[in-house]
Parts: sequence; C-alpha cells; structure tokens
Amino acid sequence: MGYCLTDLINACQNDWRAYIEHDFVRQLGAATLSEESFRHYLKQDYLFLIHFARAWGLAVYKSRDMTELRHSLDSLKTIVDTEMGLHIGYCREWGIDEESLHDLPEAHETLAYTRFVLDCGHRGELLDLHVALAPCLIGYAEVADWITSHPQTVTSDTPYQAWIDMYRDENYQQAARRERRWLDARLAEVSPRRFEQLITTFRDATRLESAFWQMGLDAAS
Amino acid sequence: MGYCLTDLINACQNDWRAYIEHDFVRQLGAATLSEESFRHYLKQDYLFLIHFARAWGLAVYKSRDMTELRHSLDSLKTIVDTEMGLHIGYCREWGIDEESLHDLPEAHETLAYTRFVLDCGHRGELLDLHVALAPCLIGYAEVADWITSHPQTVTSDTPYQAWIDMYRDENYQQAARRERRWLDARLAEVSPRRFEQLITTFRDATRLESAFWQMGLDAAS
Amino acid sequence: MGYCLTDLINACQNDWRAYIEHDFVRQLGAATLSEESFRHYLKQDYLFLIHFARAWGLAVYKSRDMTELRHSLDSLKTIVDTEMGLHIGYCREWGIDEESLHDLPEAHETLAYTRFVLDCGHRGELLDLHVALAPCLIGYAEVADWITSHPQTVTSDTPYQAWIDMYRDENYQQAARRERRWLDARLAEVSPRRFEQLITTFRDATRLESAFWQMGLDAAS
Amino acid sequence: MGYCLTDLINACQNDWRAYIEHDFVRQLGAATLSEESFRHYLKQDYLFLIHFARAWGLAVYKSRDMTELRHSLDSLKTIVDTEMGLHIGYCREWGIDEESLHDLPEAHETLAYTRFVLDCGHRGELLDLHVALAPCLIGYAEVADWITSHPQTVTSDTPYQAWIDMYRDENYQQAARRERRWLDARLAEVSPRRFEQLITTFRDATRLESAFWQMGLDAAS
Repeated sequence: MGYCLTDLINACQNDWRAYIEHDFVRQLGAATLSEESFRHYLKQDYLFLIHFARAWGLAVYKSRDMTELRHSLDSLKTIVDTEMGLHIGYCREWGIDEESLHDLPEAHETLAYTRFVLDCGHRGELLDLHVALAPCLIGYAEVADWITSHPQTVTSDTPYQAWIDMYRDENYQQAARRERRWLDARLAEVSPRRFEQLITTFRDATRLESAFWQMGLDAAS
Repeated sequence: MGYCLTDLINACQNDWRAYIEHDFVRQLGAATLSEESFRHYLKQDYLFLIHFARAWGLAVYKSRDMTELRHSLDSLKTIVDTEMGLHIGYCREWGIDEESLHDLPEAHETLAYTRFVLDCGHRGELLDLHVALAPCLIGYAEVADWITSHPQTVTSDTPYQAWIDMYRDENYQQAARRERRWLDARLAEVSPRRFEQLITTFRDATRLESAFWQMGLDAAS
Repeated sequence: MGYCLTDLINACQNDWRAYIEHDFVRQLGAATLSEESFRHYLKQDYLFLIHFARAWGLAVYKSRDMTELRHSLDSLKTIVDTEMGLHIGYCREWGIDEESLHDLPEAHETLAYTRFVLDCGHRGELLDLHVALAPCLIGYAEVADWITSHPQTVTSDTPYQAWIDMYRDENYQQAARRERRWLDARLAEVSPRRFEQLITTFRDATRLESAFWQMGLDAAS
Repeated sequence: MGYCLTDLINACQNDWRAYIEHDFVRQLGAATLSEESFRHYLKQDYLFLIHFARAWGLAVYKSRDMTELRHSLDSLKTIVDTEMGLHIGYCREWGIDEESLHDLPEAHETLAYTRFVLDCGHRGELLDLHVALAPCLIGYAEVADWITSHPQTVTSDTPYQAWIDMYRDENYQQAARRERRWLDARLAEVSPRRFEQLITTFRDATRLESAFWQMGLDAAS
C-alpha cells in the first residue's frame, strides 16, 4: 500500500533506461567517448551545479520543519562545499580553468533542465521539487553502478575513471540512498491523482537528463 | 470517505466561531460598532485587498492547467475589477478618499495575515494557498449570513447595511460557493498527514482574521 | 541619460536580428514555410501561452502598487481572454483540435524558454521578469512589421496571413507599445551594473525565441 | 556618491532608535526585565530563527552567481549550525525544553515580521531580501553594543549576560560587519526611486522588530 520511488521509475521505465544507459554513458564506460563530448558536458555541468545549488536553497525555504530544513541544507552543503570543489578540480585536470567557467554561455539543454526543476519547485510543494531533482541525484548513483557492472566497461587507464569514482564514492551513494528514503516516506501517502502529477514531473526531468547527455554527444559532431 | 471544507472548519470549531461571531461582527450587526473602529477597519481592508489580489496572481502562477488558471484568474478579476472599486467607492462614502489610502501605513495585523497567506502559497502548493485564503473568501460569506440571521441584528437605517449587503450579494455568495466546491474536490483526496498540515494553515489564517477584526475594535479604545 | 529598451536591443543587435529575421519568419512571409513546421510551431505555442499566462500571474504577485498590478493584470487578461481563444480557434483552422493540445508533450525548446522566463521572475524583481518577457511581447510586434514591410513578402492567398494579421492588429501593437513605455520608464534609472545583468537576460531570452523558431523548422526535416 | 546602510538608518532614525533602545532592551541591560517577558521572547525567537533560516535559503536561490550564493549559504549555516544550537541550549538553561518549542503556537508578532521578510524576498530581488533582514542581523549587533556601553547596564550576576554575550561575540559581530559591507556595495548604485522603496522596507522591518520586543514586554502584563 502506498507508492515509492521504484513505482515512479517503473511508470516511465523506457525513459529511465534510455537515460541510465544513454550512449554517452555507454561510451564513457567503454572509454570510447570523445574527449570533446566529455569536455563540453563537464563545462555545462558546472553551470548545472550552480542552479542545482539554487534548487536546494529553494528546498530549504520550502521546508515545513527543522528536520526537512536540515535535510535540504545537507544536500545544499554537499553540492557547494564538496561537489563544486571536486568539479572545479576535475575541470582543471581536463584543462578547463575556473575563469573560463564563469563566462561560459549556457546551453539550451542546461537552461531547459535546470529551470524546469526550479519551476516545479515554485509551482508545487517540496515533494514536487524533490521529484524533479531525483533523476539527477539518484540517477547518477545508478549510472555509476550500471557502468561498473557492465561487461563492456573498461576499468583501467581510462580518462573517465575519476568521474565514475566520484559517483561510486560511498559518500555520494549514501546521499542518494538518504534521498530515496525521504522520497519513499512521502510517496507512501500521496493519492493516485497526485501520483500521476509526479510521474509527469519525473518523466520530464528524466528526459531532460537524457537531453543533457545528448548535448555532450552532439558537441563532438 | 475523503475530507471536505466542513472537516477543516470542524477541526478548529472554536477559532472559527470566534472569528465569525467576533465582537466586531456582533457590534456591526447590532449597529453599535463605533464609526472609528469601522473606519480603521475599512482603510486597512483596502491594503488587505491589494495583497489578496497579489495572492490570486500567485495562484495563477501556481496553476497546473488552464482550468485551474481560469479559476484563479476569475477570483483575481473579481477582486481587482469589482471589489476594489466597490471598496474605494464605499470608503468615499465614509469620507476616506483614495489618495489617503495610498499613503496609509500598514497595521501589523494586516501585515501578519496577508504575508502569512503569501508564504503559505510560496512554501506549499496551490491547495495550501487556497486553504489560507478560505477564511477570508468563504468566511465573509458566512459572516454576512450570520449577521442577517441573528436576532439582534438591526436591519434598517444603519451605516453598516451597505457593507453587509456587499457580502450577501449573490455574486459574492456564488464566488464563495465556487471556491468551496474547488476545495472540497481537492480535500477529498489528501492523506491524513497532509490534512493535519492544512488544519494548521486554516486555523492560523482564521485566528489572523479574528485579529484583524480586533484591530478594528482596538482602534476605538 | 538613462537607458531604454532600444539600448537593450542594440546591446545584442546580432541576436535580435537573428530572431526577428529568422528563416522561419522569412519563409512564413514568403509563404514558403512548410505546413508541418508551422503546425508544430502552433501546437508548442499553445503550451507556451499557458506558461506565459503563468508569468503574468507572477507579475501580478510581484507588483509593488495597484498601477503595476493593473498593468500586469491587463497583460494577463489579454493572453487568457483574447490570445488564447484566438490561438485555439486558429489551431482548429489548421486541423488541430483543443483536445489534442491538452495531451501534447512539451518540446525542450518550449520548456527552456518558458521556465527561463519564470526563473528570471522569481530570482529577480518585476523588471527582470518584464525584460525576459519583452522579446516575446515586443518582438512579435516587430516580427509582424518586418514581414509586412519586407519586399519578398507574399500578401495574398497565403495560409499564414491570418497569423501575421493577429500580430499586426492594432490591439496587439498597442499592448507592445504600452509594454515598451513601461520598460523605458524603468530602464531610465538603472545603474550600469544592473543594465549589464538585464542585457544578459534579454539576450538569453532572445536566443531562446530563435531556438523556438528553429524548433519549427526542424520539425519538417 | 551613492547610498549606504547608514543612509537607510538615518532615513528612519526615530524608528531605528526606538528599536535599538526599546524598553525591552533597556530593561534587559539593567537586569530589570521580567523573566516571564524574556522567556516568552526566547520561545518566539526560536520560531523566528526557523523562518530566518528559510529566508537565507531563499537568498541562496535568488543569488546571481557563486559569490552571492556562498555569502547567503554562510549566513544560512551560521543560523542553522551555530545560532540554532546556541538558542536551544540557551532555552534549556531557562527551563524551556526542545520538545515544547516544537508545539509552540506562533505569536502574531512573529508571523508578521517573518512573513513580511519572506514576501519582500519573493516580491523583489536579493537586495530587497537583505534589506528586510538587516534590522535583525545588523540591529542585534548594535543592540548588544548599546547595552554594553550604556551607563545603566548591569554587568555581573545577571540572568541576561549570556544572551548579551552571544551577540557581542566576535563571530556574530563579524557576520554583521560582513553583511553591512555587502549592503553598502549594493546600495552604492541604486537610484533615488529605488532607494525610497528600500527605505520603506527597512522602516517596516525595523518597526516589526520593535513590535517583537514589545510582544515580550506585553507577555508579563
């Protein structure tokens, strides 16, 4: 009785698999991804993180009590104090300095996904915001797992290993599990009509994540 | 099965009766209310209407489809195109010109209620906003009914009759019934935990309405 | 002394011309645009209008006084009470019934532009929201003018004439001029640093409008 | 040339002094404040802090770049990770356990001030939010200074010393100075019309702070 995140994923199984096992992900695992694609992705992902941090700031605002507020603040701190730094360091290794990130024009795919998430948050309540954020936070944990377990994955001497390790890292996986528990507790008590709304949000967000991978692939063509 | 607005009212019956049958309302019906109290109330109610209009603008923004959007826009138009004009005309009859309304300092009671409603809207979803608005829109229709049916009510030759008639008017009563139907349809499918949240919102809004009446009474002392 | 809308346009002249004179617009004027492109555009423009209406609802909320609030409400009413109806009627003539519009999946280009505008509104103040909306409201008036005055334009017996006339209509042109005056009055007193921010918003919104045309063209390929 | 925070304070000097030197503050310094007043204030201040934290979450959302975002996040962390804990510990010393804080009904004065600040933030841009927050963050630093330097202040063996020390603490004073610099930099470039808007916001927020002290005093009568 009651819904959970797995029900959301099952309700848009095709879109979810298309995202998790996207060609960008497959090529990244097989170490055949063009560096140009990856570099373009990395740069846009920096802009993505800024709006992602703003979204968690919004989640802090929308919290109904201190428990919810602390949960959102933890995610916000993880992004700004940890991920952002890892990302900037990682970009540097790929020859992208922080200055150049500041002047970067934002790709339409970045705009579309990030502003969609923020609008879900403003229009709906905290749960709508979390559901819109889930394909990113929880999806990346699953992407890292999928790559790791996939037979075609090349595990040594690949330029992408550090990126994969970032999302396989126990801290990250733990944050993803924590978020999943939060969602499961809330989804357990929504009505069927409300669940339909959330499916739409989750599906749109998942598709926008796929489009974000695709943007990376397209940069090389 | 499922909740409705009457359940919200019953859940905070004491606060609701204290609001509907507030001394301000009783004295207004019995035509014993001091004109100073009424004039202070009228002026602050003008400021209230501005923020009330802003709240319905927010409801337009938060709508999930065109049916919801048109419902909110109808309320917004009622306030700005009808009630606002009636109110300004009514103030004029009481010797309060429109210019003086513009420079009016906002009372704490006006600030508290209006900004509370707006925050409910931003923090939650459209339903939270509607529930926070309900004591005003639906409550005033009930206040007008209560005054009318009350044995102590003086019905002729009272300076307050025009005000009472404004809320007994079929157009207003119809808007209140329309809103009640909208709420009943949504409340029917919320979970018990969610209903608890909405009770808190409804009770706080009801108390803030009472404080708004009290502000009127206090102005005369 | 002081800035005006023309300064915003001049600051991103290339992007503005690329939008106003986009191939979609040229082909529409020359009546060489594929009907498939136009139909795709029309359908997405319906979804666009819904979010555009939400944006004007947000503008009502963000207003600082009744003059600003009425200005925003006028635009909101124009969209919902007039344009929306024209659009649905117009879609019908192109064989697109209202039902099919309700189930339409939202293109990334529609998502990107509409949610960008809404985020500009939430993040900044009323002026940021208006600047993000300007390429649409004011741009379409200019697009209609440009088509009309362009030597290659075919003026009789073209399926697109009714669409062009909708934006050449005096009511629409007047709304665009009214908005321009509102913007000119506000831009007159912003600081250079603030103007830089607004240029970025205006440029991004203009590019997203171009991408919206391009989406139409791409639908036919 | 250009405005600064001192200009805001000077523009509502009477309201500012009435707040900084409020009877609640004077009695607190002179150790003549009734414990009932202080206890009521302390409890409501806990609820205040929650909404204050939400306001800084909103500031994170409204930030235009990572520098602004980190500035807001620092304030948010100070409140949630430091002040909140100090406050709960401090309440405990006054016999108020954390459980009882959770069920506390919110006073109108708390509602009025906190929701006013949040609405300033949503309606305007980041600067409006900061200006609405300034009487609290910067005002408390000044209150602590004023108490300390006032000849009637009793400095030993008073139940209020720990509270005063909390705001005299170098960490708190530093946060207040940091915020003042942020405001001075932004105010330097606003137009006279904009500055007028900000004066209204600052004055209203200052008056709402005074009303918050008054609420404490009234609790003992």
